[in-house]
Amino acid sequence: MLPGPTNVPTRVMRAMLRPMINHRGPEFKELYAKILENVKYVFQTKGDVVILTASGTGGVECAISNIVQGANKILVPVYGFFGERLRDNILAMGGKPVEIHIEWGKAVTMDMIEDAVKKDKDIKAIALVYNETSTGTKTNCLKEIGEFCDKHDLLLVVDAISVLGGDDLPVDDWHIDICIAGSQKCLMCPPGLSLLSISEKAWSIIEKSTNTFYFNLKAYRKYEKEGQTPYTPAIPLYYALDEALKMIKEEGLKNFIHRHKICAKAIYKAIESMGLIPFAEEKSRSNTVIAINYPPKVNDSAFRELLRNKYNVVIAGGQGKLKGSIFRIGSMGMVTQAEILQVISAINMALSDLGFELKFGEGIAAAREVFKKEAELVNKDSI
Amino acid sequence: MLPGPTNVPTRVMRAMLRPMINHRGPEFKELYAKILENVKYVFQTKGDVVILTASGTGGVECAISNIVQGANKILVPVYGFFGERLRDNILAMGGKPVEIHIEWGKAVTMDMIEDAVKKDKDIKAIALVYNETSTGTKTNCLKEIGEFCDKHDLLLVVDAISVLGGDDLPVDDWHIDICIAGSQKCLMCPPGLSLLSISEKAWSIIEKSTNTFYFNLKAYRKYEKEGQTPYTPAIPLYYALDEALKMIKEEGLKNFIHRHKICAKAIYKAIESMGLIPFAEEKSRSNTVIAINYPPKVNDSAFRELLRNKYNVVIAGGQGKLKGSIFRIGSMGMVTQAEILQVISAINMALSDLGFELKFGEGIAAAREVFKKEAELVNKDSI
Repeated sequence: MLPGPTNVPTRVMRAMLRPMINHRGPEFKELYAKILENVKYVFQTKGDVVILTASGTGGVECAISNIVQGANKILVPVYGFFGERLRDNILAMGGKPVEIHIEWGKAVTMDMIEDAVKKDKDIKAIALVYNETSTGTKTNCLKEIGEFCDKHDLLLVVDAISVLGGDDLPVDDWHIDICIAGSQKCLMCPPGLSLLSISEKAWSIIEKSTNTFYFNLKAYRKYEKEGQTPYTPAIPLYYALDEALKMIKEEGLKNFIHRHKICAKAIYKAIESMGLIPFAEEKSRSNTVIAINYPPKVNDSAFRELLRNKYNVVIAGGQGKLKGSIFRIGSMGMVTQAEILQVISAINMALSDLGFELKFGEGIAAAREVFKKEAELVNKDSI
Repeated sequence: MLPGPTNVPTRVMRAMLRPMINHRGPEFKELYAKILENVKYVFQTKGDVVILTASGTGGVECAISNIVQGANKILVPVYGFFGERLRDNILAMGGKPVEIHIEWGKAVTMDMIEDAVKKDKDIKAIALVYNETSTGTKTNCLKEIGEFCDKHDLLLVVDAISVLGGDDLPVDDWHIDICIAGSQKCLMCPPGLSLLSISEKAWSIIEKSTNTFYFNLKAYRKYEKEGQTPYTPAIPLYYALDEALKMIKEEGLKNFIHRHKICAKAIYKAIESMGLIPFAEEKSRSNTVIAINYPPKVNDSAFRELLRNKYNVVIAGGQGKLKGSIFRIGSMGMVTQAEILQVISAINMALSDLGFELKFGEGIAAAREVFKKEAELVNKDSI
């Protein structure tokens, strides 16, 4: 139950064993076309999509490096470790980040965005992390930011690595110009691929770039027309992605996202019923990464080792300045009632073992209530 | 028999199915330490090595972008498609490439290098493709270039993507400062990882760089000390690499390289006995990619489709300006007598089918002679 890499379904793992093929041959062309079509479905876009052999940060670098010559000054709301990483990436690529500092656990507001853009007329783009993995917090006004960018002719770049597929994110409807996802989160694949959607507005800026090579989006677009990638793709990971996208299509994107919502809701309810406090403010809580404050006197390493060794559940600790003060549950991809109930029981038991007073079963009952209500709704719908 | 991706042994494919792990946890740390040790063995280096989740071109970009601020003017001998790519990469990263044009099929000489360096005192580094996949040609004086660079305090960057493990390349002995390999060539893995060795001299230049992020070598070095990578690694590909390196160790690097030499020799002998002419000049012929001129009137697509559909052998055509005039056989990784004899027979048959006059069995006899002599030598040694 990590916030990535997440569990990979057996179907997806097995797909990696398909035979190695020539990435300049007809088999790859066919595979690639199918994948691109399904990636567009998941991004809910009619625009272009690109797949990179690189992890998520490579995808972010790709987005930034391709726009930084045309849109040099970029507004960046920072509310966690990955926001900081995004800012640093802009700096390294030669851009000028204009930072909005936000208290970790809270998210950017429309007022903050409007103020910052009003103050600095040179800002040409907004880049932000939709779902901040380090704090379990999300930008809850992303749709409004998209409308604002559309109206003010700003480019909108969204790091959605830990959330695409796990929460609402209709890229075209929300006017997102470049959206970046990672294979190893909600998409149920092993790590190693980064996926990007690119709007026509973004292309007009990208056209001006001369400072990229491995991440040169113009080259990707050119080769895509021939059913190829400019550089050798990580073929087994493409096979895995192909299979995972098929599974998402079978479930239906709407159901897939809804399942994530129900699972997250169950975890939050369970956590609170146990007397624990989520790290993120209520209105900005992530749907895929649940960050929880440690109760007093519970030691991070002791707790997570107990979970791991005695209860067979692996979750993550805090990152950066939150190390030791929070723990994080990834609720992504293949996650179902079964996993949720197991992780809640394990947390309940481990906390009890460590002397934190709670009644056994408290969390479970709350989670069960969420799943029960959901089942009733589904039954009602199907009558 | 492609010049990459090459066939991946079943052991290596199966290794990808090991369970997904936390890349910040103890299991990854252990895996990573083992891999790094074995990568050093294959590079024959005591220096640092780094593994990137990216294909070979990503590795080249990593090398170039990390040195280009400290060593801006870079001498690049260009004798094929990948040399051109290297030059373009330097340009995109903001460097000043000083190009040595070499006729395709020939390789750079020491005279050319010395002349160029004498003429331009601002040259701080030499970057070259050791084994030019597009032409089946190699830089046969790489050892001497290394000595020259050592003596003149120049940095030496070597793209060895299609050759590391398949030909002599003792990185430390030859004074190579940054050497780049790809997982999907001689190393018998699927594509998706790039491997680099880095000398102390290179680090002194890299320290000055501020323009990298995903490919920031300083970050890789820092995280490596903790048994981690800065960004999420493509875990299944790490498993594959781990297994492939074990296989190379079991065979012994010396034997592994020698097997490549014998196989290449058998192909060249067979090809010539059939009346075909290798594209590369004799002294610069590649040990891993055998490029062959088409005899008159043999059509590239017709020939390779026949090979593929009737004889079940996949080889590559020409790239760039050589498209249609040569074909290329990859002899890398898992290649043995069996594959060589099969590919030669298939080429023999397909050429006959297309009306090119040759006696059946000519190539086979020549290849067999090479393998027979080799077996006699081995037997003699073992008495």
